[in-house]
Amino acid sequence: MTMQMTSCTKKGRGRPKVFDREATLDRAMELFWQHGYEATSLADLVEATGAKAPTLYAEFTNKEGLFRAVLDRYVSTFAARHKAQLFCDEKPVEQAVRDYLTALARCFTSTDTPAGCFLINTSATVSASSEQIARAVRTRHAQEEEMLLAFLTQRQEKGELPAHTDLSALTAFISCLIQGMSVSAREGAAPEDLMQIIDTTLGLWPTLVSS
Amino acid sequence: MTMQMTSCTKKGRGRPKVFDREATLDRAMELFWQHGYEATSLADLVEATGAKAPTLYAEFTNKEGLFRAVLDRYVSTFAARHKAQLFCDEKPVEQAVRDYLTALARCFTSTDTPAGCFLINTSATVSASSEQIARAVRTRHAQEEEMLLAFLTQRQEKGELPAHTDLSALTAFISCLIQGMSVSAREGAAPEDLMQIIDTTLGLWPTLVSS
Repeated sequence: MTMQMTSCTKKGRGRPKVFDREATLDRAMELFWQHGYEATSLADLVEATGAKAPTLYAEFTNKEGLFRAVLDRYVSTFAARHKAQLFCDEKPVEQAVRDYLTALARCFTSTDTPAGCFLINTSATVSASSEQIARAVRTRHAQEEEMLLAFLTQRQEKGELPAHTDLSALTAFISCLIQGMSVSAREGAAPEDLMQIIDTTLGLWPTLVSS
Repeated sequence: MTMQMTSCTKKGRGRPKVFDREATLDRAMELFWQHGYEATSLADLVEATGAKAPTLYAEFTNKEGLFRAVLDRYVSTFAARHKAQLFCDEKPVEQAVRDYLTALARCFTSTDTPAGCFLINTSATVSASSEQIARAVRTRHAQEEEMLLAFLTQRQEKGELPAHTDLSALTAFISCLIQGMSVSAREGAAPEDLMQIIDTTLGLWPTLVSS
């Protein structure tokens, strides 16, 4: 007993570390967000998360498994927060779109996370050799567009948008602007640069929805 | 003499190869366009261009030198062709913008070159460790925006755009859409998807320039 206790005291300092899955995913997300899937090595992930390689393997099997867990965490945290700005019945449709775009612009230019959109950055840097990962990211990115279309459809059914508005074209147009904002942020745009794009977009809103 | 000739015959088959600088740059451009700066190795470049490593070193010093030469070639070929669609005095301003965006959309979705915009793709994938290259690409990308602003200014001075139109905001908005189209193309959008974005944009033109 005494031997065991001594050995235990020698091995670890203070309390034994508990593996913090969420903190690990957040640190890994930051690396993938900044550098992309391929350019982030397992050694980088071990260093950044402070977790040991065997722990990461036990928890996520491999780098792909860790990336997929990060993708899920991105969806349940960041993407969910942005979505909440849209699906809020009290807001007029224009306000909901403005708040959604503003939340995205803030996220893309936030100093707490790498510049640009996590999904767009990782999609842009994934190579053909990681086809499964590329597909997973693009499927997830496409779901953002489907969500926007679902929101606009809901508002059209409520009579807040003209019945003749081509919602697919409107969704594609807004999505294109979001992607462009992510590229701008990645290249160093300030929050106010993106706010100007949003102002221009909302200034066009009456024309945009009546076309 | 005979010895030398024999040795020469043994070394090369048929005529000695002449180094084709432009063809080499085009093959190198394709690799950088598809995979980005870091992910393209000198070994990849040697294989793709068919040039020998010492020849590439003699001509371009190193990978950075080769990339800079590729960037210049992109500007003098692709970017020059797109620019020619804008700076054409006979075209009304709207037509010039439509033709410019159409040329870009065709380029982004062309099967002759990798998907997306060369400048936007390489900018998205360049890491902090290649700061000089990142700066070169971003400076060149910013020049595309300055060129668009110069064109719109010219047309405003000619009275084709209202004097009160905020040309900086208009340029930023169009540039954002171009960036978004590049991301869409990279993620697999068809030419007609991008044409729809262009149609929506030009449909907004009267509102866009009078705001």
